[in-house]
Parts: sequence; structure tokens; C-alpha cells
Amino acid sequence: MHFQYQNPTRIIFGTRTIERLGEVVRELGPKALLVTGGGSVKRSGAYDRAVESLRAAGIAIAECDGVEPNPRISSVRRGAETARREGCRVVVALGGGSVMDAAKVMAAAACYEGDPWNMLGHGQEGRHIPTEALPIVTVPTLAATGSEMNAGAVISDQESTLKAVVSAPCLYPKTALVDPELTMSVPPDQTAYGVCDLITHVTESYFNGVDGTPVQDRFAEGVILTAMEWGPRAVADGRDIEAREQVQWASIAALNGWVQAGTLSPFPVHMIEHSISAHHDIAHGAGLSAINPSWMRFAARTRPERFALFASRIFGVPEGGRGEMAAALEGIDRFEAFLGSIGCPTSLTAAGVGGELIERYAEDTLLISANAQGLLAGRPAMTKKDIVEVLRSAR
Amino acid sequence: MHFQYQNPTRIIFGTRTIERLGEVVRELGPKALLVTGGGSVKRSGAYDRAVESLRAAGIAIAECDGVEPNPRISSVRRGAETARREGCRVVVALGGGSVMDAAKVMAAAACYEGDPWNMLGHGQEGRHIPTEALPIVTVPTLAATGSEMNAGAVISDQESTLKAVVSAPCLYPKTALVDPELTMSVPPDQTAYGVCDLITHVTESYFNGVDGTPVQDRFAEGVILTAMEWGPRAVADGRDIEAREQVQWASIAALNGWVQAGTLSPFPVHMIEHSISAHHDIAHGAGLSAINPSWMRFAARTRPERFALFASRIFGVPEGGRGEMAAALEGIDRFEAFLGSIGCPTSLTAAGVGGELIERYAEDTLLISANAQGLLAGRPAMTKKDIVEVLRSAR
Repeated sequence: MHFQYQNPTRIIFGTRTIERLGEVVRELGPKALLVTGGGSVKRSGAYDRAVESLRAAGIAIAECDGVEPNPRISSVRRGAETARREGCRVVVALGGGSVMDAAKVMAAAACYEGDPWNMLGHGQEGRHIPTEALPIVTVPTLAATGSEMNAGAVISDQESTLKAVVSAPCLYPKTALVDPELTMSVPPDQTAYGVCDLITHVTESYFNGVDGTPVQDRFAEGVILTAMEWGPRAVADGRDIEAREQVQWASIAALNGWVQAGTLSPFPVHMIEHSISAHHDIAHGAGLSAINPSWMRFAARTRPERFALFASRIFGVPEGGRGEMAAALEGIDRFEAFLGSIGCPTSLTAAGVGGELIERYAEDTLLISANAQGLLAGRPAMTKKDIVEVLRSAR
Repeated sequence: MHFQYQNPTRIIFGTRTIERLGEVVRELGPKALLVTGGGSVKRSGAYDRAVESLRAAGIAIAECDGVEPNPRISSVRRGAETARREGCRVVVALGGGSVMDAAKVMAAAACYEGDPWNMLGHGQEGRHIPTEALPIVTVPTLAATGSEMNAGAVISDQESTLKAVVSAPCLYPKTALVDPELTMSVPPDQTAYGVCDLITHVTESYFNGVDGTPVQDRFAEGVILTAMEWGPRAVADGRDIEAREQVQWASIAALNGWVQAGTLSPFPVHMIEHSISAHHDIAHGAGLSAINPSWMRFAARTRPERFALFASRIFGVPEGGRGEMAAALEGIDRFEAFLGSIGCPTSLTAAGVGGELIERYAEDTLLISANAQGLLAGRPAMTKKDIVEVLRSAR
């Protein structure tokens, strides 16, 4: 193993910690840009509680609401402009992954003269990795992306229908204020997509990381087993606060780097999914659910032993003399059945995505993510033909 | 779960990363206090490589060598005095847990007018939790304590034969420069003690933490399983770099907070062991090995289900209709046998400690660590009589 890791984000976890928002923000500055989504935080009461805490601490507030489920660069531009115009010194993200991702890039864009789409690598002026951002506080209302405690963000461009990733140390939130009660109003389908999203974060590094990372393997398995134990409870009863807590903590541990440190893993399934949800406004977790099992069957061909390990450690599937591939495939079938059991789509059709644009998704994926060899990094690296094959078998 | 967590340390992990020491220190200041132990780093060549890298980067060096295996407050005073006198701006710890712990407290003591023993809670002037320290860079030469990436330190006082703990955010190293090659010269016995130490870090939180932490449970099990898989290989062949890597990464993940976050766990076995190694210069890991199985048998009486889970998940021991306690005890027996198999002492006698001072160890433990109720915190909390009983059965 050769790697470097640092995650400076402070996490404050627990029910009713939202009441500490004002105190947390006051350490950072007197005026906040409050970033929210489509209105669910207003219906749930989270917005009122956040504003009350900020006001009680004497924090002035400017707002950027209406961030889309797949957040658009146009919203980032709007939020950054508001932050600059209003003289905000802090950015507070109150919402799901899309709100947190957009808020992070707004915070960097507020400190950058150029077009923020440059930060995603597809602007007119070449790639600009941000080095400076307003301090960020995340208050997640959905357990899924882990964005509250990492340095990444995914943003879409409506015009080019491209969806791209930015990651930079300045995007680590100063504080993640994680109150699992805020997720109790999330409906069952979105809860399930979040469970799939968090599991996929660790399957990516489990199956695509370097060899020789046994601690990270065990950590990944721990996240998956916990999500499979508690996820169905959160889906079945959204008021089950213990289930909400465990799923949320699993979602954070899944992508704050603790599982991935040292694995140097690309995220091919995510890259393919981004190209789909750039065209269709489907939940990212639903898109992942539709394609991950198909990708697994594809990847198992070149590395059946890894998928047999997954089958054994996650589902207790024995190899039993029938060969690694048979055990591998049984593990993937069981994983797919689990996704279906909590209401996740396990095909593109079930996710509401037709097959007409499959070639285009593959092209977009490579346009955004191709490595120096023109391939999508992963184990194995994928050609356009490979991506098309995986998507066809996911129909 | 209710908790707060932040670990800002950057880790740079990999063989030959020691060559980056100068570059890393240069970011922090022009003159370093280089803290070392009894000479093994000079014999192994690590010292020469560190000095070469520092000199090549133009870093001036002042030295504090001779830090004891159970580091003494007198050494901390000496190092802090050198740092102040020489105008050091950075503290570099090159050694095992004792060197790193001493260096951390030196870094804080260099910024503090009072006696550093106050920071350990037992000075004349009442407890002083440090709030400021020179920046610290750790370069571990032993895989054991995890001190390279956490904010804790354990220091002994020869006069009072007390050993105490300090933990404060300012003690987080800026960078942990972890080069597993540096551990290849560690002899088999010390390697085994390190394996026991790292495993005990996670058994403490596994058995003494709050209920309802399934992710943390799985992470703890992952560290134990990895240490049990790779530890014996590192003991058997010190030149096995892969084994050295895996054991070292496990030792860091065992105590950088990733396993413990949210468990709010006291460390009773550590507190008892500290009282023993304050009187006898035995390796901390050896002391832990001598008493942990006895403590487990004691604690299993009040919580057999937890120890049965350990037996099942670590050793695949089925409950099999004979009751939780039988399975629990089989798991503990197997754990004890594992420790013995790698050459760790599983009794005080084997660790070279007689039974004469057992009452005193128990008294010292409570003197240092008693909670408001006069008990040693843990599950269950322990009276002096309980501690004596555990130590008697560990003879």
C-alpha cells in the first residue's frame, strides 16, 4: 500500500444536534448562505429549526433554495453569485447529497473569478481544481451520499447533459452536523435508494481497489452488512430512529475515506450511472441499483475469486466444490435480490430508463472519465463496447 | 449514538516514505526537535535516513534521545527544555509508541510555563489540559500503539510510580509518516506485543462501549481478524513486508478513532495495565496480553451475549445449544491461545511480574482512573476488589 489520507471534517452526530447549528456556524462567520433543495426541508420542519438556531446565534442569512435533485451548474452559479453579493462568510447546506454537493462548489465558486464549470473539468477555460472555498457546514437530511464528510461533489450541466465530479481538500466541510431525526421524513423509496447508494460506495472500492487491503475489505463488508441489517428496517418504518441512525452512520463511514484509504479505487459504476442520470432525472441510488448487479456479473468473469469472497463474507455462500464462479454468481444474485426486496429497481426499465440512449451513455461516460488509454478505469478497465454490454444486460 | 469526532492528522503511508521527512517538516518550520529512544533507530539505519532527509531539506536539528520504553515525565521535561532553548518550531518523533507519546507531550510542554506533569493530571498545580503545542510529525518504527495518528499519550512518573494519560486536540500530529519498512528490524517478541496491543485497543471499545454501534463492531472485528491473519506472519518472518504493512495499517486503524467513534468507550484493561508497567519495565503489549483474557472472563459473567458474539464472529464458534456463556468462554480460550501462539505472555508470571503488588496495582488504577463513583469505568465498572480478582486470576 502507498497512499496519503487526511479528512479534517469534524462530525457532530446525534438526534437534535441540529439545535447546535447556530453555535457551529458562529465559529466561522457572521453571515451564512443557506442552501436548500425543493422544499422537503420546509415541509419537514428542518428548515424552521435550522433558521431558528442560526437566528438565535445572531447569524445573518442569505438563501439559495431550489437546488435540483441532480444539482445543476446553473444553480451553483446562482448560489455563488448570491454568496458574493451578500457577503456571506459561511455556506450551510441543509438537504441531501445534491444540496451538499452544490453548496460545496458554491463555496469554492464564491472564491473564484472564472466559471465554476471549469472546476468540473468541462468549462471553456480548462480544468481548475479549487484551492480555496468559504467554510462549509453540512446538515444532511438524507442518508446516502456521504457528502457531509468528504471533499467530493457531483454536478450536472443541462446544456451538455454531462455530469462530472470535483474533489479537492478545500471542499471538506468544517463541520458535519448529523441529526438522524432529520431523515425520518424521507419516504421509503428514497430511503432504499440511499441504502443502495451507500452500499455501492463500498462495493466500488471492494471490487476495483488494489490488491492487499484486508483491513479495508473488512471495513467495506462491515458497512454492507450493517446497511443490509438496518436498511430494511428504515425502509419499513421511517420512524425507527435506531434504524435511521445506523443507516446514516453507515452512509458516512462508507465514503469519508475510512473504507477507501489505500485502495486507490476508481468508481466505474458511478461514472456510468452519472451519464444516465445526467439525461434522466432519476435518483442516483436508483440508477446504481439498476446497473451494479450487471456490472458485477461482467467484472466477475475476470476476477471470480473476488466475487466469491463477497458471496462468502456477505451472504455466507460456500464455494462448496462447484467453483468460484458459481459461488460468485450466487452472491451477485443474492445481492440483486436484496436490492429488489427493499424496493430498488434492478433494471434500467424498472428505473424508468429506456434502452434508446445506451450508446450515448457509454460515450458520455468515456468523454467524462476515460483514462490515458481511452478506457473507463476499473477492474477490468472498460471499453465503450464493455459499457454498452453491461447496460444492455441491465435493461 | 451521540458523539463528536475529528482527526485532522494527515497520513502518508508506504515503504520508503521516510525519504519524504524533510519535505514534510519543511512545511512546518526550519528547526526540529528530533526525539528518539534507546538506540534501535541508530542500529537499524532509520536514524541516519531521517537525518539525511531533514538535512537535505535544510532543517536544523536539536536532539532528545534516550526516551525510555515506558516514557518518563523527566524525559518530557528534558525534551521540552531543549526545544525551548534551541528554538525548535517542530517536533519529530522517530520511534515506537513511547517516543511518539513523549514527543507529543514535549511539543505541548514547550508552549506551557508550568510543569508538564500537570498535563497528566497529577502535578502540584491541578490538571492542565494542553491547548497549544508545537506541530508534531510522527515516524513510527513499531506497529502497536497507533499513537502516530491520534491525540493521546501515556507518561510515567518514576517518583510516584504512576502512569497517566493525556489526550487533547492539539496533540494530533500534523503528519504521520508511516514507512512499514522501518518495522522490519523489530524482533519477534516486540512484534507480537504490538499485535496484542493493537487488538486490545479494539477489544476495549468492543466490550466496554455503548450498545447499538454495529458499524463500529464490524470495524473492530475487521481489525482483529486482520491482525490475527497477518500478525503471526510478521512474527514468523520480520522481513515479510506485506505482513509488516498489514499489521501496521491495522495498528493505526485500531486507535485513530475510526473504530471507537461513537462508542464512548473507557479502556479499563489499559488502565489496569498502566499501573503494572509503571512499576515494572515490561512492554505495554505484554502486560495487556497477561491480563486481557482474565478481564474478559470476569466481564463475560455480566454480559455473556457480547462475548458469545465475539466468539462467533472472530472464531466462528457456534453457540450450539449449550448457552451463551459456554460459547463466550470458548471464544476467550481461543483468543488466549492465539496470544500464546505468537509468543505473548498470558499470565503475569509469564510476563515476569510477581503477585506481591496486586493490591497496589488496583489502588494505583483507581487513584489514576476512578470515576465519580470511585470505580474504574467499564462494563461492568470495577471496584478495587474486582481489579484484584482479575489480577489474581491472571497470575
